[in-house]
Amino acid sequence: MGKDDRLQHLGDAFGTNPFDDDHLHEECGVFGVFGHSEAAALTALGLHALQHRGQEAAGIVSFDGAHFVTERHIGLVGDNFSKPAVIERLAGNRAIGHTRYSTTGAPVLRNVQPLFAEFAGGGFAVAHNGNLTNARTLQRSLQQRGSIFQSTSDTETIIHLIATSNRGQLIDRFVDAMRQIEGAYAIVALSEKKMVGCRDPLGVRPLVLGKLDDAHVLASETCALDIIGASFVRDIDPGELVVITEDGIESIRPFQAARPRFCIFEYVYFARPDSIVEGRNIYDVRKRIGAELALESPAPADLVIPVPDSGTPAALGFAQAANLPFELGIIRNHYVGRTFIQPTDAIRHMGVKLKHNANRAMLEGKRVVLVDDSIVRGTTSKKIVEMVRDAGATEVHMRIASPPTTNSCFYGVDTPEKSKLIASHMSIEEINAFIKADSLAFLSIDGLYRAVGEPGRNGTTPQFCDACFTGDYPTRLTDQQDIETTRQLNLLAEAV
Amino acid sequence: MGKDDRLQHLGDAFGTNPFDDDHLHEECGVFGVFGHSEAAALTALGLHALQHRGQEAAGIVSFDGAHFVTERHIGLVGDNFSKPAVIERLAGNRAIGHTRYSTTGAPVLRNVQPLFAEFAGGGFAVAHNGNLTNARTLQRSLQQRGSIFQSTSDTETIIHLIATSNRGQLIDRFVDAMRQIEGAYAIVALSEKKMVGCRDPLGVRPLVLGKLDDAHVLASETCALDIIGASFVRDIDPGELVVITEDGIESIRPFQAARPRFCIFEYVYFARPDSIVEGRNIYDVRKRIGAELALESPAPADLVIPVPDSGTPAALGFAQAANLPFELGIIRNHYVGRTFIQPTDAIRHMGVKLKHNANRAMLEGKRVVLVDDSIVRGTTSKKIVEMVRDAGATEVHMRIASPPTTNSCFYGVDTPEKSKLIASHMSIEEINAFIKADSLAFLSIDGLYRAVGEPGRNGTTPQFCDACFTGDYPTRLTDQQDIETTRQLNLLAEAV
Amino acid sequence: MGKDDRLQHLGDAFGTNPFDDDHLHEECGVFGVFGHSEAAALTALGLHALQHRGQEAAGIVSFDGAHFVTERHIGLVGDNFSKPAVIERLAGNRAIGHTRYSTTGAPVLRNVQPLFAEFAGGGFAVAHNGNLTNARTLQRSLQQRGSIFQSTSDTETIIHLIATSNRGQLIDRFVDAMRQIEGAYAIVALSEKKMVGCRDPLGVRPLVLGKLDDAHVLASETCALDIIGASFVRDIDPGELVVITEDGIESIRPFQAARPRFCIFEYVYFARPDSIVEGRNIYDVRKRIGAELALESPAPADLVIPVPDSGTPAALGFAQAANLPFELGIIRNHYVGRTFIQPTDAIRHMGVKLKHNANRAMLEGKRVVLVDDSIVRGTTSKKIVEMVRDAGATEVHMRIASPPTTNSCFYGVDTPEKSKLIASHMSIEEINAFIKADSLAFLSIDGLYRAVGEPGRNGTTPQFCDACFTGDYPTRLTDQQDIETTRQLNLLAEAV
Amino acid sequence: MGKDDRLQHLGDAFGTNPFDDDHLHEECGVFGVFGHSEAAALTALGLHALQHRGQEAAGIVSFDGAHFVTERHIGLVGDNFSKPAVIERLAGNRAIGHTRYSTTGAPVLRNVQPLFAEFAGGGFAVAHNGNLTNARTLQRSLQQRGSIFQSTSDTETIIHLIATSNRGQLIDRFVDAMRQIEGAYAIVALSEKKMVGCRDPLGVRPLVLGKLDDAHVLASETCALDIIGASFVRDIDPGELVVITEDGIESIRPFQAARPRFCIFEYVYFARPDSIVEGRNIYDVRKRIGAELALESPAPADLVIPVPDSGTPAALGFAQAANLPFELGIIRNHYVGRTFIQPTDAIRHMGVKLKHNANRAMLEGKRVVLVDDSIVRGTTSKKIVEMVRDAGATEVHMRIASPPTTNSCFYGVDTPEKSKLIASHMSIEEINAFIKADSLAFLSIDGLYRAVGEPGRNGTTPQFCDACFTGDYPTRLTDQQDIETTRQLNLLAEAV
Repeated sequence: MGKDDRLQHLGDAFGTNPFDDDHLHEECGVFGVFGHSEAAALTALGLHALQHRGQEAAGIVSFDGAHFVTERHIGLVGDNFSKPAVIERLAGNRAIGHTRYSTTGAPVLRNVQPLFAEFAGGGFAVAHNGNLTNARTLQRSLQQRGSIFQSTSDTETIIHLIATSNRGQLIDRFVDAMRQIEGAYAIVALSEKKMVGCRDPLGVRPLVLGKLDDAHVLASETCALDIIGASFVRDIDPGELVVITEDGIESIRPFQAARPRFCIFEYVYFARPDSIVEGRNIYDVRKRIGAELALESPAPADLVIPVPDSGTPAALGFAQAANLPFELGIIRNHYVGRTFIQPTDAIRHMGVKLKHNANRAMLEGKRVVLVDDSIVRGTTSKKIVEMVRDAGATEVHMRIASPPTTNSCFYGVDTPEKSKLIASHMSIEEINAFIKADSLAFLSIDGLYRAVGEPGRNGTTPQFCDACFTGDYPTRLTDQQDIETTRQLNLLAEAV
Repeated sequence: MGKDDRLQHLGDAFGTNPFDDDHLHEECGVFGVFGHSEAAALTALGLHALQHRGQEAAGIVSFDGAHFVTERHIGLVGDNFSKPAVIERLAGNRAIGHTRYSTTGAPVLRNVQPLFAEFAGGGFAVAHNGNLTNARTLQRSLQQRGSIFQSTSDTETIIHLIATSNRGQLIDRFVDAMRQIEGAYAIVALSEKKMVGCRDPLGVRPLVLGKLDDAHVLASETCALDIIGASFVRDIDPGELVVITEDGIESIRPFQAARPRFCIFEYVYFARPDSIVEGRNIYDVRKRIGAELALESPAPADLVIPVPDSGTPAALGFAQAANLPFELGIIRNHYVGRTFIQPTDAIRHMGVKLKHNANRAMLEGKRVVLVDDSIVRGTTSKKIVEMVRDAGATEVHMRIASPPTTNSCFYGVDTPEKSKLIASHMSIEEINAFIKADSLAFLSIDGLYRAVGEPGRNGTTPQFCDACFTGDYPTRLTDQQDIETTRQLNLLAEAV
Repeated sequence: MGKDDRLQHLGDAFGTNPFDDDHLHEECGVFGVFGHSEAAALTALGLHALQHRGQEAAGIVSFDGAHFVTERHIGLVGDNFSKPAVIERLAGNRAIGHTRYSTTGAPVLRNVQPLFAEFAGGGFAVAHNGNLTNARTLQRSLQQRGSIFQSTSDTETIIHLIATSNRGQLIDRFVDAMRQIEGAYAIVALSEKKMVGCRDPLGVRPLVLGKLDDAHVLASETCALDIIGASFVRDIDPGELVVITEDGIESIRPFQAARPRFCIFEYVYFARPDSIVEGRNIYDVRKRIGAELALESPAPADLVIPVPDSGTPAALGFAQAANLPFELGIIRNHYVGRTFIQPTDAIRHMGVKLKHNANRAMLEGKRVVLVDDSIVRGTTSKKIVEMVRDAGATEVHMRIASPPTTNSCFYGVDTPEKSKLIASHMSIEEINAFIKADSLAFLSIDGLYRAVGEPGRNGTTPQFCDACFTGDYPTRLTDQQDIETTRQLNLLAEAV
Repeated sequence: MGKDDRLQHLGDAFGTNPFDDDHLHEECGVFGVFGHSEAAALTALGLHALQHRGQEAAGIVSFDGAHFVTERHIGLVGDNFSKPAVIERLAGNRAIGHTRYSTTGAPVLRNVQPLFAEFAGGGFAVAHNGNLTNARTLQRSLQQRGSIFQSTSDTETIIHLIATSNRGQLIDRFVDAMRQIEGAYAIVALSEKKMVGCRDPLGVRPLVLGKLDDAHVLASETCALDIIGASFVRDIDPGELVVITEDGIESIRPFQAARPRFCIFEYVYFARPDSIVEGRNIYDVRKRIGAELALESPAPADLVIPVPDSGTPAALGFAQAANLPFELGIIRNHYVGRTFIQPTDAIRHMGVKLKHNANRAMLEGKRVVLVDDSIVRGTTSKKIVEMVRDAGATEVHMRIASPPTTNSCFYGVDTPEKSKLIASHMSIEEINAFIKADSLAFLSIDGLYRAVGEPGRNGTTPQFCDACFTGDYPTRLTDQQDIETTRQLNLLAEAV
């Protein structure tokens, strides 16, 4: 998709696209198993548990002792990796996988990861969650040197850096490549003899280590360990590179030590409630977020209603802290896929809610607190407030379980341009007027830090990456400096 | 699928099929619009809202003033009726639609409704929710007479009865056919000039009437009115036949009056929480079911945990009545489709939970009440109890929001044979031993009636069809009398 | 496809459709085997050999002793019946098959034969080559009686006639049905115990009997016996019905004897050159046609050039009789499928020849006799004459190996309406002016009869059906009498 | 496909594969248009005319002034490039295309040409007919340098050589790459501003230049000029590189002059009869081959019968020279695709002829000369001789329109390994015994040279590449020297 189409699309989304669910979207989940006879089946299960991190496409690469085998498919893991024939083709006791979110447009198979390349020294497969902030700059200089790119994916940039490194051994070449890249990344890679896991020096994106019998497992979140019955060993550290071979696991720390900056939005929305990330249970953090919100911004109401499903834990926390009944006042239709009726103009003007319906019997005559996790463009909030009011609610107090989202993410999260973020150019009062609630409150940034167990945000050296709320980006944004666009590179992967 | 395959399949399901979610399944949803320029688009939206009543396939028939147009597709409504081209083909200001649940095997397009036939007097399309209990007997006599069936679907039986009726006018022929059939049915049909809605004399299956501007709407549930912004007019009465033309709506009551016997399981599980059925809000009934359950069978516990999503309203009601905290202790993965990894034997033995994961951080060291809506075969309950215990719960008290399911349904619900229903041959104590809970309780049948607002079950003339709990079938089961199988006819539609 | 679309299509074809190959097209081939363990594989091979009689779709029905199994696919036999899995599904030692030509529009699976119906007495499959001339009339009266049609196919009419017959045994019912139908038909049918073959009383369409080991074989042409190594036993006689069971073969002649009227166009174009039909080898007849043509209408030329492939045998016969060199002056591209570039207007005006190219080196400076089998609309002839002239031929003498085609066929051949047949409204001189040849001659009707071995056409009781050349239809055209359209019924099968 | 599978496949083919048509196969056709508003449509037509050079897949790349657009599809040109939408996507007034033959196994889209790469200086697309004999060696050294290959296609090697050249301008880089490669190639390439055509220094593969209005056209054969009405300008010379821009056409000759060695097998079998290649009409050469054969090896016979279609021109030439009747004694079924019934063992033993059938009526009691173009493995000849004899021929004299094929081709033709070539290890007498003919004769190598207009083969500096007949390879075979396999590189492109 060219840039113009993208803008057009964003324009649509801002207005009337019935599938605008107005959330930021994680772009990927990664997974790997080394040393288990069912490696591919376990990887498929792990990717299924990580499906919330990316629904567009998925891929698995296995190594059977002689050949690498690749299966990459557009669509859900369950739809494409369910047939015994597929799993049987992915022979071998080691495999890595990737599940991908794509922002828009027709997905293209050549962008589906893991990417694979045949180096002079043998095959190499890479799965990557995150985004490099200097990929375009690196790509330009690699092309000058004669490297031929199949895509503009930043993951392919990593592969070319390894291929053209003048170091000798694979791991040295890998480290050489890592030292040239900037940005956020959690990488799982596979060569004939080794599985590699690596987090960027700030540890922006998550990556955990697990064990299943004698096999080592790498995964974006612990829920992917749970599904296969693997035990959780530990988080991979920021800046750590683990090398798993038949002889065991080795840890390398090739980067200068840095204060970690884990993505705080993983707690707000991305990660699955049952995952434990950097020592904290997601569901528990979200409930505490709700409780902080109830303390900071109480509301005179009869009921607390979540915008399902993402607002549910915070709403429960709010209700318990405020001592108000928690009720399912909005019912979500889970059969909504990625596309639906391109409504005719007539239908469009009806403002159809394909995903949510008010549970009228519960709302009639009630003052309600409505809890959602975040507001991106504001369009969905506006529709939902209207829907709840039409169903008979007498007052609607909107409470948002995060601070206002004011800045784009360049670390692997699909964010609209800054100008499309309603909080980047409207005050809370203005947003409240736009969504037509009786009152609106966001959680404070310090409240958010308290919910994750910190005394508050450390303004000098913040404990997390919270750039989407503060604009405080923890790495250089090299590509951004010499191009006009504020979109990140790998979102342009489809461009001709 | 032949009978042997079916038995084989049930055997699989009983054992290890990871998709056995151990629920009865509604077989269909129906919808119709007469007199709106966007008839097909509205029908697609209505079917989308009724998707929980059948996910296998969907179809729409419209009439454009000269021709009937049919679109029938395997798969979800959103996946097949989302393209403008499809909606445009379905021209005209009247349309009916159907969404279908199929029990097993490869779905076959010729069984997807609405069925359409060209009569001597013109075209006629029929969409049917329910099941006839004398269809096979009628079919046999129609075949003797020379009628050729394309399927063994009971809906096709209705069409042949109309075609071969010796009455003159279409509505007379339709009534003639209705008088010959036994069983449960909510029918929406379309001829060139008329849309017809009809419920069986006992009103086992639901059907509601709505209005959108000047258009009349028929739908299985009110949630399908909500999505298009139609207002709810009233339930179609048991035994009522409404005929909608350009001149308005006419009501016919061709059957002898009978005490209604609405399906009580619609309240327990089938209908959507936001629907209002026979004057009661489903969510509200389910919460009251939970409260009755808490009164009848309290448990010494720290938390109330639903088996999501169907156990959630009852768990909330239970928690509120018992004054215990309600928590999301089990997280559901909504990306589970109808098929997934046919696991290798090794994987199978791991007892993978594709759909549910325990939220370990919430369960560790806690005594929990686990609330689910029903138990059919018991296999899922057993796995979930084990999963919750593995996550650290010290006690697991299972509470079921309905009485034991002891009998098959012959009224359009996919039920296993009686022998596969765990409660048909095990006592509650035995079931408890099988699922390995610390305690197990079902709601009493009178408790269920109280939850829907009755003083209790009237043993002489019960207020509902509750045959699945009591074996008290409100109609004759003609086909059952002369065949061995205990499966209902239209589940054999695939048989050669 | 509605009638208007059809007319539109014909308009296109008349003008510029690059795939207009300007031939009449046979509509079907039929085949059956009874008593061979490889019945389905043999049927697939037989249909492959009959592929020239219909390329749109093919189907096979087998009976495995307990169930009928059906496979019907759009596309070529080789593309759809090549996988072992398909052949394995078609279990049993008896099978019948059908290959179908469709005139235009998107093919629809429900029209693909063999058709199958479950009668009160058991299953019955029918494959039919030909066309009934009273099918629409019969269908109307069957519908009055309550029969429901899935299509307007005349084959379905036959099935309903059997189903509603008041006779007892299947063969009696079959005969009862045959006695009610008019038109041309070669039918192969299969019940649980019997395979039936039947030709209409005039024997318009061919059907032969073969033997392979102990198995009986029925096929439209002998080339389908050759491919499986079966020996040719005899032609089924006009009006004969053979019933094949495990006990052997029985012959019934339920019709009043009539003078046969085999379709003479089978010799001109339809049948394969290597087939032997009604005692005559097709290739040999075509060569003799060419020789007759050389005698009747010699031309002063240097070379004889066929329009490949159908004009080749006649051109060889012409060249030998005229003692002129036979050369391949036009090369045919066999990779032309049923569709190709819908050219842009610019391309369209280039008059692209997708199927034929002049072999310039052979034509330059030569006077050529160009031999084609027939002229239907004249458009292709016009283009080919122009192409040959552009390649440098100094004179082009067109010789047509049949009389002028002046009338539509109603016996299972796809013919344009009479008004589209160039010879129906233009004299030979006018046609010559239209195609811009130096001279044009058609074979005389008596010349054609001489080529097949007759002394000439018997004007009182003609030896063949030659209605397309003479308008002398050998049966009643009941449907034509009360409807305006001049199209045959089963060509309207797609109409909504 | 791995090497073992390949060997297995060859084994099958040697034995019983019913689709073994026992010919060498050309691997590609190339085409390009520069300066015509219908560039993509013309390219599709040109590729359609070149379909005989490769049926597996086809691709077109166009440049619309801003972007390169690519369409690559498995299957025939007509099946994939027939929709207006496809042609419209391929916007621009310049386009190149490629049609590809693949030897075996499932075709893979990433191997379909034209290949496209984004260089530092802009996009570049390449379509290649031929094979490089040092591609594997070059690839290895490119990989050492860090180049990442997507395939093992030799065409990709060319692209990497251009990308990594240290020359400045594109044409200089292209020449730099050409100077490093060995083997046979006819290349058509497209950059933003230029279309390039290039033949290897020996001119082994054909490439012609044409003109259509102001547009320049490049094509493998003249038949692709004919279909679009372009005029033939001249052959591109061996070792010539033409650069076509908006300013016109420029010719570069970057190689040392060498005596041309055009592939003589193009005359025997590959090229289309209506093409004019290197000044000679193919059909005319083939007829002269037949005449030479009649002079060298006459036979006492009643008829001359071609093995259609490839043996037809030589058979005509033989018949005219021998003054014997030419007859179609074998009928070819053109509906044979690339796959057909994997026959069961029982069917396999029947020796089914899917492609050819004897025209029994013509052969009975006759002594026949059977003319085919070549014998590769001998299996098809054996079957055809048997078939002709079974049809009643009393004597079968096999005449082959080329010398014995004794050596593999490494210049872009799919040849079995040398050991599979029957003539590599059997004398003519032994082959005759194997195919069971009454007599067998091949054309002499000098006879073949005479047929193309030479006085005979010049043993010191042969006028053609005739390595398949003589083993005299005109280039170095670098890759062959250090690897065991005798298969050429790009046939291994599918290997994992």
